[in-house]
Amino acid sequence: MSSVSAPAAASAADDLWSAPGRPRDPDAKREAILTAAATAFVRDGYGATSIDDVAARLGVSKPTVYYYAGSKQALLSACFMIALDAYSEAVEEGAVSGLDGRERLHQVVQKYVEITTTVFGRCLHRVPDVELTPPVRERLRAVKRKVDARIRDLLREGVRDGSLRTADVRMSTFAISGAMNSIAQWYSPVGKLGPDEIAERLWDAFSEGVRPR
Amino acid sequence: MSSVSAPAAASAADDLWSAPGRPRDPDAKREAILTAAATAFVRDGYGATSIDDVAARLGVSKPTVYYYAGSKQALLSACFMIALDAYSEAVEEGAVSGLDGRERLHQVVQKYVEITTTVFGRCLHRVPDVELTPPVRERLRAVKRKVDARIRDLLREGVRDGSLRTADVRMSTFAISGAMNSIAQWYSPVGKLGPDEIAERLWDAFSEGVRPR
Repeated sequence: MSSVSAPAAASAADDLWSAPGRPRDPDAKREAILTAAATAFVRDGYGATSIDDVAARLGVSKPTVYYYAGSKQALLSACFMIALDAYSEAVEEGAVSGLDGRERLHQVVQKYVEITTTVFGRCLHRVPDVELTPPVRERLRAVKRKVDARIRDLLREGVRDGSLRTADVRMSTFAISGAMNSIAQWYSPVGKLGPDEIAERLWDAFSEGVRPR
Repeated sequence: MSSVSAPAAASAADDLWSAPGRPRDPDAKREAILTAAATAFVRDGYGATSIDDVAARLGVSKPTVYYYAGSKQALLSACFMIALDAYSEAVEEGAVSGLDGRERLHQVVQKYVEITTTVFGRCLHRVPDVELTPPVRERLRAVKRKVDARIRDLLREGVRDGSLRTADVRMSTFAISGAMNSIAQWYSPVGKLGPDEIAERLWDAFSEGVRPR
């Protein structure tokens, strides 16, 4: 599937890995592997990506990938978890600031969009989670539900403090979450709009609606 | 992958296919095969679904599936095309009614959401199109772009005739399309809300926004 050449023999590959400019500590190595995996999953699809492809992208051996990140399924769930952890952190931070519901939701939207445009965010929304085993999938879906619930709470708090108005908190939550998640389908790191600008414009569109006043 | 039993030998399977209540004409047979395929792709994922699974779901032989619908990739692109043709028709109908931009967009949203909740709509938005060969993928993406462009035109016409208001037609189009497409991720045929109700509530949420007036 990959258009890059096959990885060199393990020893040569692992020399490459420890060449100048390459990550040295295990966490950085693992992150480099997960980034390469997410990039391949987004570009070529999960089915068409092999551990060999991931190894070849980094110029390391296949055992190195297994050592730092595990099986292909483990790579996928780790990529998903990076995005989900970031979303969780963003909504939890949104929960504690002293602003009103509207401003807190606005802040969460800015962070959420930024995460969605990362390769891990794009991977989360573009690779179906049916590729994972049911227990892992359920664990990830539980985190997703918590993130959605927190966005719903922020909307509800905004309605309560008068800074937001909606007849249907649940559907407004689906609308903003759906619109934000769909950015993963069309965002390009080389496109005209950066994450900040996308977030601002989307917030305006969502917030203002389209009914003439 | 499938939990149903393996299909019987070809002759017995094809007897089943022509049993009372089974579709008889070739178009109906093809549609039954595509419905079974889309259902499996949505539930189990594209990678985990085999032609054998699709055949077993219908109690027909594997050659019967190939005869009416072709390879697994052909099944997927045919499933996508059913949804995309339906979207195309919906936006084209929206273009010719005598109503103002707002009402036409509202009608298109109703039809679009209905299509998104079908198994073909869910298949389109849940299975990544990277599974298809580049030429097929490009053909399908071109249809998607046309559908999106038509929604953008409707918004623009509404702004022109004063029935809609938005500072950013493109981002409002992304917001409504993204929100509608994301229904495919959470819609369940046995859930509380039917397509009509989802469409109405989403339209209200999108249309009204959340800013207090």
